[in-house]
Formats: sequence, C-alpha cells, structure tokens
Amino acid sequence: MVHIEQASEPQLREQLADLLDRYDQLAAGKLALDLTRGKPGAAQVALSDALDGILEGDYRAADGTDVRNYGGLDGLAEARILFGNVLGTLPEETLVGGNSSLTLMYQVIDFALTEGLRGPESAWARREPVKFLCPVPGYDRHFSICEYLGIEMLPVRMLETGPDMDQVEGLVAADPAIKGIWCVPRFSNPSGCVYSDNTVERMARLPKLASPEFVVMWDNAYAIHSLYDDAPELASIGKWARQFDTMDGIFQFGSTSKVTFAGAGVAFMGSSERNLSTFKAHLAFQTIGPDKVNQLRHVRFLRDAETLAAHMAKHAAHIRPRFDCVLDILDRELEGTGMASWTQPRGGYFISVDALPGLASEIISLADKIGVKLTPAGATFPYGKDPEDRNIRLSPTFPSLEDLQTSIDAFALCVKIASIRQRLGR
Amino acid sequence: MVHIEQASEPQLREQLADLLDRYDQLAAGKLALDLTRGKPGAAQVALSDALDGILEGDYRAADGTDVRNYGGLDGLAEARILFGNVLGTLPEETLVGGNSSLTLMYQVIDFALTEGLRGPESAWARREPVKFLCPVPGYDRHFSICEYLGIEMLPVRMLETGPDMDQVEGLVAADPAIKGIWCVPRFSNPSGCVYSDNTVERMARLPKLASPEFVVMWDNAYAIHSLYDDAPELASIGKWARQFDTMDGIFQFGSTSKVTFAGAGVAFMGSSERNLSTFKAHLAFQTIGPDKVNQLRHVRFLRDAETLAAHMAKHAAHIRPRFDCVLDILDRELEGTGMASWTQPRGGYFISVDALPGLASEIISLADKIGVKLTPAGATFPYGKDPEDRNIRLSPTFPSLEDLQTSIDAFALCVKIASIRQRLGR
Repeated sequence: MVHIEQASEPQLREQLADLLDRYDQLAAGKLALDLTRGKPGAAQVALSDALDGILEGDYRAADGTDVRNYGGLDGLAEARILFGNVLGTLPEETLVGGNSSLTLMYQVIDFALTEGLRGPESAWARREPVKFLCPVPGYDRHFSICEYLGIEMLPVRMLETGPDMDQVEGLVAADPAIKGIWCVPRFSNPSGCVYSDNTVERMARLPKLASPEFVVMWDNAYAIHSLYDDAPELASIGKWARQFDTMDGIFQFGSTSKVTFAGAGVAFMGSSERNLSTFKAHLAFQTIGPDKVNQLRHVRFLRDAETLAAHMAKHAAHIRPRFDCVLDILDRELEGTGMASWTQPRGGYFISVDALPGLASEIISLADKIGVKLTPAGATFPYGKDPEDRNIRLSPTFPSLEDLQTSIDAFALCVKIASIRQRLGR
Repeated sequence: MVHIEQASEPQLREQLADLLDRYDQLAAGKLALDLTRGKPGAAQVALSDALDGILEGDYRAADGTDVRNYGGLDGLAEARILFGNVLGTLPEETLVGGNSSLTLMYQVIDFALTEGLRGPESAWARREPVKFLCPVPGYDRHFSICEYLGIEMLPVRMLETGPDMDQVEGLVAADPAIKGIWCVPRFSNPSGCVYSDNTVERMARLPKLASPEFVVMWDNAYAIHSLYDDAPELASIGKWARQFDTMDGIFQFGSTSKVTFAGAGVAFMGSSERNLSTFKAHLAFQTIGPDKVNQLRHVRFLRDAETLAAHMAKHAAHIRPRFDCVLDILDRELEGTGMASWTQPRGGYFISVDALPGLASEIISLADKIGVKLTPAGATFPYGKDPEDRNIRLSPTFPSLEDLQTSIDAFALCVKIASIRQRLGR
C-alpha cells in the first residue's frame, strides 16, 4: 500500500472498496474479542498456582510472627526486603500493603491533600487550587484519582526519554499550586518508553525546584517486566534522591499483580522513613493492617531476586510472541502508509498507536462494530479527552495468539478505512 | 472479704497490708502478660490452617470467573451468598471486600462525609458540624474513625438491652447534625450485651426520625460468636428495615477475622442495592477490587451455614473456659465487696468491668507495674476519656489458661488495693 498522501483519489477509492468488503466479511464473522485491559493471560496467572498451599502449615514469619493473627502496618520484614529490592529502597523505607498499589497511591494523595504529610498546615487542600502534572499519554487510573479528588490536571508531553523535563521543570518552578507528577518510569503505560538516566536524575531533583510537599508519584508497575534482552534498565531514582536529599518528595510504588495473581497479589511502596511514619499514622485509622498470610506466601514463592527474575522470564516468554505479533502486523499493514505511528516497547503490557489526528474515536468505533473492543478513545488522557483524538492503546497480553492476530488485523483494517475516508473528505 | 463499705478502718488497713505483700511478691515474679487486645488464640487461628492449599489448583469460581485475574468490585457471587447469610442480607445487598471490615466502615463514612451517599449535595460535610452517637462503653476503633474525620461524638448510655433508645431517639429527632450511630449489636464490645428485639426494631426505624442521610453503622463483628447454649439470638435489623423502608439508612458489617485468620480473612457489608451501587462508584477510584482468591478459599473452607456453625463451635470450645476462668475469679475475689461490677457475656471477645468511680486508670497502672497489660483506661469512650474513669475491658481470648488465671488474679488484687486505698483516703 502506498503512502496515503501519494495515492491518487481513484486509487484510494478502489482501496476503500476492497477494505470495506473485508470489513463486511469480518462483521459477518461475529467476533467477540477484547483488547481493552492490560490483563495477564490465563497461562501467566497459572505460573503462580503453587502460591496456594505453599505455606504447608508453617504460618510463622522469619522473626516468629504468627501471620494468622493481628498486628503490624509495615508488612512482614522479609517482604519488605524482597520488594524493597524491586523498588531499590531499603527495608525501613519500604511498606508492604494489601492487594492494590492503586489503593496505596490513592491513600498517599488523599492524606497529603486533606491531612497533610507534615502536619495539618501542610495539607495541600489548605491552599486551593491543587494541580498535578500528567505526562500524556498516561494511565487512566492515575488521572481518575486526581479527577475524583478535585485535583486539576496539567498534561505534559511524553518524549522517548520520558516526560519532557524542560516543560516539567518550567511549570513546577512557575506554579506553586502544582503538587505532584505521575510517572510510570519503566515501560510506561501506554507508550512503553523507559525514562532515560537524565530524566530520572532530573525527576529526583524536581522536589528542590517545586513547592514544599511536592510529590513525585513513581508508579514502577513494570519494574521487572522486560520482554527482550535489549530492554533498557531504569536508573535508580532513590540513588539520586539520596544525593539531592529529596527522598521526602518521592513515593515509589509496585505490586505483584502482574507477577503472581492480578488483584490477589501484594502491593508495596517506598519513601523516606519520615514519610512512611506519617503515612502509617494516617493508615492506622482505616485498617487493621495488611494480609500477612498472603505476604508470607509471596515471600516463600518468589524468594529472592534470582527466583523472581526466573519467574518473570516465564511471563516474558508468554508476552513476547504477542508483542511480536502486533508489531509484525502493524509493520506489514501500516508501515510507510502515513496512517499511523506506534511504539516498539521492550517490556511492559502495552503498545501505543497514534493514528492521524481526529481518527482515534472513529477507528475504535469501527473496530467495536465488528466485535473487537479496544481501550476507549481518550482513556490515556486527563478527563478522558485526547485533544488530538489520535492515541490508541493496544493491550496484547490477555487474548490467545490466534485471537490477537485476528484483532490486530481487524484493527489495521479500521485504521486504513478511517484514514482513507478522511483523506477523501468522506 | 466483707463489703468495702462495711469494713472498719483497721480491717481495711490489715487487708491492704496483706494485699500489698502479695502485690510485691507478684512484682518480683516479673510477669509479662498481655490482655490488651481481642486477639484470637494460636489454637483458634490454627483451626483454619486448611485454608492455605484448599483450592488444590482449582481457581475457578462457580460462574467460571478466574479468581487469579482482575475484575469485580462486589466480590464473588458465592461469597456474597455465604456472608449475606451471616448478616441476613440478600446476595445483591451484600458486598464482599478485602481483609478488614474497619476499612469498609471508614470508607462508608468518608464517602458519606465528603462525596455524599446521594450525590455531592448530600455530603454531610456540606453542613457542619457533623455528629455521631456513640453508645458507651464501645469500640475504640469506631471512635477513632470519627475523631480522625472530625466528627463530633455524643456518648449514649448502654443498657442491658443495648443503647438507651429513649435517649437515642430524643437526640436524633432534636439535632439534624447527628448523622449516624455506632452499634455492635451482638456481644457488644466491650459489654457483651445483645441488643433486645425492641432495640433492634427501634434502631431499624431510627432513620425515619433522623435527618436525611443518617446511617446506622451496624458492626455485627460477633454475629456468630456465641459461647454458651443460652446465648441470646439477635433479631434481624434487615427484616425490620424492609418493613419500615429504611434499608438506605442501615449499613451492616462483618468479617472472618475472628472466624478464620485475624487480618487475613474476608470482610463484608450489607445495605440497600442503591447504597452499594453508590459505594462501588466511589470505591472504583481507589481499588482494583478485592482479593478474589482469598474469597474463594473462604467459600471452599466455610461452605455453608452448617459448616460455619460447626467451625464456630470449635472457637467457642477454646474461649468458653477462658470466660469461665475470668468470671470465676471475679466472683470469688470481688463478689459482694462493692468494689466492682462486671458483665457476664454469652459470647464475643470481652468482659467489661466497672470499678469504683475514679479508679480505672489507677488499677490499670497498678497491673501494668507488675507486668499485666490491660486495655488503656478510657479506650472504650470517645476521645479516650471515660468521664467516670471506671470502665475496664478484659480480653481473655489470647493468653493460655494458666497465664489468664495469673493475670485475672493480679487484676483482682489491683482492684482491691485501689479500692481500699481510696476508701482510706490514701
């Protein structure tokens, strides 16, 4: 297929007729495929089936704690070591919680907003408005926390190196109402980019330029989720933060939702000891503590960095062919057409596609009509609104390879139909 | 020992000298006993050791849901049936959550306060001040939620039939700032009383007398925790609420923290479908959903009402001798002395002792000095302040029978020392 801008009108009309024929055939096939969410596949969650039963009746943590009884907000000592390693934080800078890192993030922001990280006077809500920087495209669940809590969101450009730090630093230095920034630093959702060393260093220094009580929300959800041997490493923000003395301004998060069981794993966070102590003081009012039995299961199952890495290699073996499949089809069908560009992530759960401006909603709607559900248009932007209506997030992990191939073929078809129609002025 | 008011001063002095001798002997024994918390004993939590491994690789819920993957805020269908039965709510009126019913209670109040149960205009915080009725003595964790969220607490008398409903109805009808009441309706913490049928009926009608968006917080933590065959049943508040059309004003809670593992069990709540739908809309911003794997474990283990009852009978067999031990010692040492009165609960986790006014702190401090830790004085009252300084909560479940006997002997000794000293004017 030639580049859309070089094709003649008759060529485009002919192509469109062919494409619509194939579209009608697909429509008749009554597909029911779902690429909306970054869900692990059934074979992936089965990798951790040994979790249930792994305790073999031994419910004692290393220090003798009976995990079947009440007590403790920090999480088990051995879990803090294991998951602190994932974040690059010391055990005393690590808290291991319940089944959802999203809950930990919500709680940090809720506490900072209404109760204050440094006493009541420091509560963000004391000085309205409160704003957050949101690199786009980004993760819809981050944005909806801000929207729910009445925090104004300012979009920031994502580059291949992570958020545009010139823009970030400029905004933060100029506006003291900006109280935080969302980051998915490795295999970012959805672009899959890994923040460069320079971006991490500048992010670690950011609290120095920002208003007091500014927080970097470092959601390292895909910290150990590389797919290819050449996947870039992420620099340690903690190492820089220690050097700049900004640990109080950095909250790191992770979970095993995409390591063991999605929604039945263990979430964790890392920050300064001072922050954790404040956080726990708030937390004590709303929980009796995390599920320590499940933490112990996870420690016995994932054991150490080496066992964890071997386990993650099995996930990669499941996901890699799916990423390859998507990238192969996009290459074959859309490369050189001028109709779309896309990322080639080396890890994570998503591939981000940019269609021609104004076409994302239409493409997603076209796909939906023939039974291929994609993440809703705009989901990767604050308030669900993509100003250029062009970004589409593909989530290839859950379907079978065969279903994935059918879905992406159909998706490419919809991209072409929408693009040619636009070019022809409908 | 004769009644303290009938003893002569010389008699009291002689008794006190004897008591102080025994006190010094105990002090030399370097006891380290802890009766502060309502923790199940090690033998109790071991009753549920089969939980880990019970799935035997079958991670599918009855409707085919793969519990190892994302999805669902309501909890598993079969868990909603099982735990709805405990609360007396229909499955569609039941939500099964994470490991802590305290978290569910906090969330209900937080949402009602800041976001509103009937849209933003209904948020309690729109019309300050916000007040809650707190039957006393009561559960400190309930009171600290109110204190943390800035809700003013009004104490209400507890009778043997539950909260004094004349007082409750009078207050609620007179003051629209009162937005809720805390209840532990069966084996109340700490008195152990069971609300009478009339109290339950009047409580179910209470939202009709109260301001809009008033909530009865019905923490049925000990719903199935009877110890003796003559334990009174609790009337169903849901049955009455349906009759009075007040389901929107009633939130019921429970958990398996004192059924399976404390802090690693399953929490649940029941209310109108309308309330649950609002609650979930809020909840979606702060969690990816509950741990369904642990819910499935619980359903497979506890199965049905009959299995659950048989399991609870094993708990009762552990706790009953401990309650008997405490009540025997109190009878033997303090009956007829005029120094204390206490409850004789037929279930639950606590025995509530009222010392002579002004002596609770001193008794607890005397016990602490010889190595017997009791729940801090005032803990059972709002703001941690018992206006008469007389209520002491005993938690007999965790210690061994031998340790418990030593502790309660020491406690009775401290009651006598403090009482006689007070009578002698020091």
